[in-house]
Amino acid sequence: MTALARLGHVALRTPDLEGSLHFFDDILGLDVVERDETVAYLRAWGDFEHHTVALISADEARIDHAGWRTRAPEDVDALGARLREQGVEVEEVPAGHEAGQGAALRFRTPGGLPYEIYHEVEKRPAPAGRRPALKTNSGRVWSHGVSPRRLDHINFVTPEVAAEEAWSQQMLGFSTRERALGADGSVHAAWLAVSALAHDLAIGRGPVRGSRGLHHVAFYVDNASDVLRAAELFIEHGLEPDHGPGRHAISQAVCLYVRDPASGHRVEIYSGSYVVLDPDWEPVDWTAEEYRQWWGAQPVRQADSPIDVVTPC
Amino acid sequence: MTALARLGHVALRTPDLEGSLHFFDDILGLDVVERDETVAYLRAWGDFEHHTVALISADEARIDHAGWRTRAPEDVDALGARLREQGVEVEEVPAGHEAGQGAALRFRTPGGLPYEIYHEVEKRPAPAGRRPALKTNSGRVWSHGVSPRRLDHINFVTPEVAAEEAWSQQMLGFSTRERALGADGSVHAAWLAVSALAHDLAIGRGPVRGSRGLHHVAFYVDNASDVLRAAELFIEHGLEPDHGPGRHAISQAVCLYVRDPASGHRVEIYSGSYVVLDPDWEPVDWTAEEYRQWWGAQPVRQADSPIDVVTPC
Amino acid sequence: MTALARLGHVALRTPDLEGSLHFFDDILGLDVVERDETVAYLRAWGDFEHHTVALISADEARIDHAGWRTRAPEDVDALGARLREQGVEVEEVPAGHEAGQGAALRFRTPGGLPYEIYHEVEKRPAPAGRRPALKTNSGRVWSHGVSPRRLDHINFVTPEVAAEEAWSQQMLGFSTRERALGADGSVHAAWLAVSALAHDLAIGRGPVRGSRGLHHVAFYVDNASDVLRAAELFIEHGLEPDHGPGRHAISQAVCLYVRDPASGHRVEIYSGSYVVLDPDWEPVDWTAEEYRQWWGAQPVRQADSPIDVVTPC
Amino acid sequence: MTALARLGHVALRTPDLEGSLHFFDDILGLDVVERDETVAYLRAWGDFEHHTVALISADEARIDHAGWRTRAPEDVDALGARLREQGVEVEEVPAGHEAGQGAALRFRTPGGLPYEIYHEVEKRPAPAGRRPALKTNSGRVWSHGVSPRRLDHINFVTPEVAAEEAWSQQMLGFSTRERALGADGSVHAAWLAVSALAHDLAIGRGPVRGSRGLHHVAFYVDNASDVLRAAELFIEHGLEPDHGPGRHAISQAVCLYVRDPASGHRVEIYSGSYVVLDPDWEPVDWTAEEYRQWWGAQPVRQADSPIDVVTPC
Repeated sequence: MTALARLGHVALRTPDLEGSLHFFDDILGLDVVERDETVAYLRAWGDFEHHTVALISADEARIDHAGWRTRAPEDVDALGARLREQGVEVEEVPAGHEAGQGAALRFRTPGGLPYEIYHEVEKRPAPAGRRPALKTNSGRVWSHGVSPRRLDHINFVTPEVAAEEAWSQQMLGFSTRERALGADGSVHAAWLAVSALAHDLAIGRGPVRGSRGLHHVAFYVDNASDVLRAAELFIEHGLEPDHGPGRHAISQAVCLYVRDPASGHRVEIYSGSYVVLDPDWEPVDWTAEEYRQWWGAQPVRQADSPIDVVTPC
Repeated sequence: MTALARLGHVALRTPDLEGSLHFFDDILGLDVVERDETVAYLRAWGDFEHHTVALISADEARIDHAGWRTRAPEDVDALGARLREQGVEVEEVPAGHEAGQGAALRFRTPGGLPYEIYHEVEKRPAPAGRRPALKTNSGRVWSHGVSPRRLDHINFVTPEVAAEEAWSQQMLGFSTRERALGADGSVHAAWLAVSALAHDLAIGRGPVRGSRGLHHVAFYVDNASDVLRAAELFIEHGLEPDHGPGRHAISQAVCLYVRDPASGHRVEIYSGSYVVLDPDWEPVDWTAEEYRQWWGAQPVRQADSPIDVVTPC
Repeated sequence: MTALARLGHVALRTPDLEGSLHFFDDILGLDVVERDETVAYLRAWGDFEHHTVALISADEARIDHAGWRTRAPEDVDALGARLREQGVEVEEVPAGHEAGQGAALRFRTPGGLPYEIYHEVEKRPAPAGRRPALKTNSGRVWSHGVSPRRLDHINFVTPEVAAEEAWSQQMLGFSTRERALGADGSVHAAWLAVSALAHDLAIGRGPVRGSRGLHHVAFYVDNASDVLRAAELFIEHGLEPDHGPGRHAISQAVCLYVRDPASGHRVEIYSGSYVVLDPDWEPVDWTAEEYRQWWGAQPVRQADSPIDVVTPC
Repeated sequence: MTALARLGHVALRTPDLEGSLHFFDDILGLDVVERDETVAYLRAWGDFEHHTVALISADEARIDHAGWRTRAPEDVDALGARLREQGVEVEEVPAGHEAGQGAALRFRTPGGLPYEIYHEVEKRPAPAGRRPALKTNSGRVWSHGVSPRRLDHINFVTPEVAAEEAWSQQMLGFSTRERALGADGSVHAAWLAVSALAHDLAIGRGPVRGSRGLHHVAFYVDNASDVLRAAELFIEHGLEPDHGPGRHAISQAVCLYVRDPASGHRVEIYSGSYVVLDPDWEPVDWTAEEYRQWWGAQPVRQADSPIDVVTPC
């Protein structure tokens, strides 16, 4: 079994904290759980951890880290020891350094991806006056903006996809769900999971790596029609989606991508994918000839985008 | 041809103007166009007239009037003259009495329904800073609350349905679309139109009449899924729908009813009905044995409701 | 007032009647009302006339005619007389020549568009064993294929858009809803209506005219999600949409275009547009700078397409 | 970790195999994988195992068994040994006895629920000519009927809910997600999972037990709008839903229940629930005072129903 249970949160550095809050709160519709002058913590109405997004004031827009929650408390140190054995530099983060969270470890993968592992986390209920109608939600549905149900997955670019995929399997217990192959048969992109989701992590070939390699962070909505509503909401706010609405062949998700204008970080509104309950899912490879988008708008190439990925499900 | 073109607006008296504004603005999602201390004018993002709802501060919750717009300017006085010939008392309302509107006439039908007819109206664009993405809308979609596209129809109860139906046809040019018959074959409720909508006006048998006889005002949303979203939004605001989500057989509409807690006025969120383009639509009668709801939640009987109608499409 | 009430039906010539029936019946989901070896008559479950589509076996794929129903029986001859006064050649079609239909007149517009006008038509109920659950439908919903509610509009290309628009207004009583202007300010495309729909007829600039100028025939579905379902259904049948799913700015419709592989005739699956109830709608012009698609997939250019239109709402 | 991975299939006895096939194939829209005169095997387009539903010709309508797939091949015998240690009678089913399946064990829970555990199963691709557009599906979407994505969960009634819940946890590794408590605080119904789904198994208090205690089998559709479409499709086929469309508080699912008229077995069309990725989900208890349906149609009491359950999510 894998030691990792799920993608727990994503911490993003932004040069304009107020601007990014406008996007993630007012437009995307996350709830602010806690904030001070340098960091804001947010979550969706179906997220239960203290936060699933942290926005950190910084000189430059970069991803700070992706936080992976382990299955058991002892998995954090056990995985840390294995990483150190492999020569990976591991940083200890004391409890409370990140609000609502216990002791954590941070490290970079061979592809440079900035990861955190942790287990202890506060599951704070909504404050009085903002309690949701249902006990199984942490916030109120449809209160503002897109109003996604929960954080879904993260997608990075990195120059060496096959190597990163293999390391993710061996060290972190990821399984491969699907792969897009290039014309030469090499792995162009891979979709990997530790949970039952179609994927928790995707990696695609790109010229950058590490904290500059974030392609997008995805948030789940219950219905394809909610993705269409998000498109109209974004456009009314002057934001132009750079991919979708459409439906990927890989992951089968109905998708829409837009960027926070204050930071350039891209988010995906995501619905309608599959879950994997079988223990013996075989990776599905799509050759360049086979690959197609199921339907909908193709990615827009943007001159000011640091990355360029063909199949960013 | 009928002299009336459409239901233009509905003016509602409320004992709690601030409370009703909270419902019609924050929860239902209409835009406030203009207001002072005693009256507020609102419209939906797809409404073009100055307002489609007026909320008037008053001692008691009642409908003030339903405003029917005529096809041509001269239709107002011509129809007024015909009404006076029939002995109907007609009140002249000077231009500007109702904001954004020209001279109008007010009268009561034989069933006591408080009507206004008018033609001249200001089609005010959205103020700078609130302009919509599309030139064919007057406001921004999905900016807050349910966010319906437009006012759709009005539904009254009155003791004598068949007589009111006949008068509405003869004097005002309404056509009957559908009728619900009681066990004795009498007309229990009728759905009538001057426009291409499935109905602009519905009348159902009930013990009250006139300005106390408002059953509901309906607002159109583009999709059935938008009706479901409205149900969740209402419940998060502590409002319990008293009918739906469901789909009527009569009108084929997907429906949801809820009441403004400040005034008790009921609104319907409405989608998916038919339009009638043929000039020779024959009224469709449903006997008590034939009548059914297509699917979904039946009406809830509420002890504090002044009216009780079996088939309030 | 206009003499025309609505677009009643579209008659299409196909070189492969069985193949086209497979598309319009099995895939699009229309019901076959009547057929013989050379012609098949179909309609949607919310259409009441004898047929809204006629498929005619022919050497070549062309539109045979667009059938416009008049408001009153006497409008047919009155309009015929006006056309002859203007020098238009008018052909008399006897009752029964087209199944289920009374006497009609056929003529070509100055742009060559092949029109028919008629009023008498049989409103045949569904045969026993295929009766729908609701009396206000002519067939069963969701029985097969896309299952649209009704025929919506027709779209032609023709070289002289402004001239055709003016003639359609003056002779046939169309009103202009919206127009797309080219960079030189000339009318590139126009959307026109005789009914309350956003448009019954669209004309766009193209190199061909007349019966070769059909761009598409549109069918209405109740929800945007039904358009997405249609995309998946088409792809499972091996058909690739050549535009959409997306949402036009002009008409605000959620759209999807695909071609019958047997004939090349293009159909649009269409939802979510507006209706016009006001008698004084002012045409909305979109300059080339202003024009945008609201969201979604752009048109695909196809080398084998006889026409090429930039804004085919 | 649990030994069970998921609900793999449900085998149902029916006194009218052809009639039940009409329901599960033509109306529900499952694909027939294999059949002979006494048994038919079906699956949904997103199911990969040989079958997820088996229909078995029999004298009486009962559930034959719920088939639970284990995580690893060796889990079958290991769990069988533990059951025998506890005095449970375990029946060995040879490979191939159920088409497409390896050796299995069958037993009854203390509440009498007829279970099968197995691991080996054939993942048969669709036959040529029925291949889906996407490699990650086993069949074509929207080909006929409701067309659900996959089997979701099973719901039983049994007299002793708390005892069955405890045994399911201890012996089979189920976790409790939510519970409905009666007025006396006792467990009225429990929703349990071995996978990441909101629940794989639900048990509610009822007077019957064992193979007569099936409340329903649920099938997942991607969107709430697909549930509404299913309601209309059922009604067109003369079937009246006995609960929904609506949305449960417990599980948050959009739901619709209807019964196969040939057997009386009830199916649920189910969408929009949550998944649980956290390893430390705490069971959520709803008291009788707290419990509510989120929105929509309440259950219909049917005189001919063998069971009567208040909260059958």
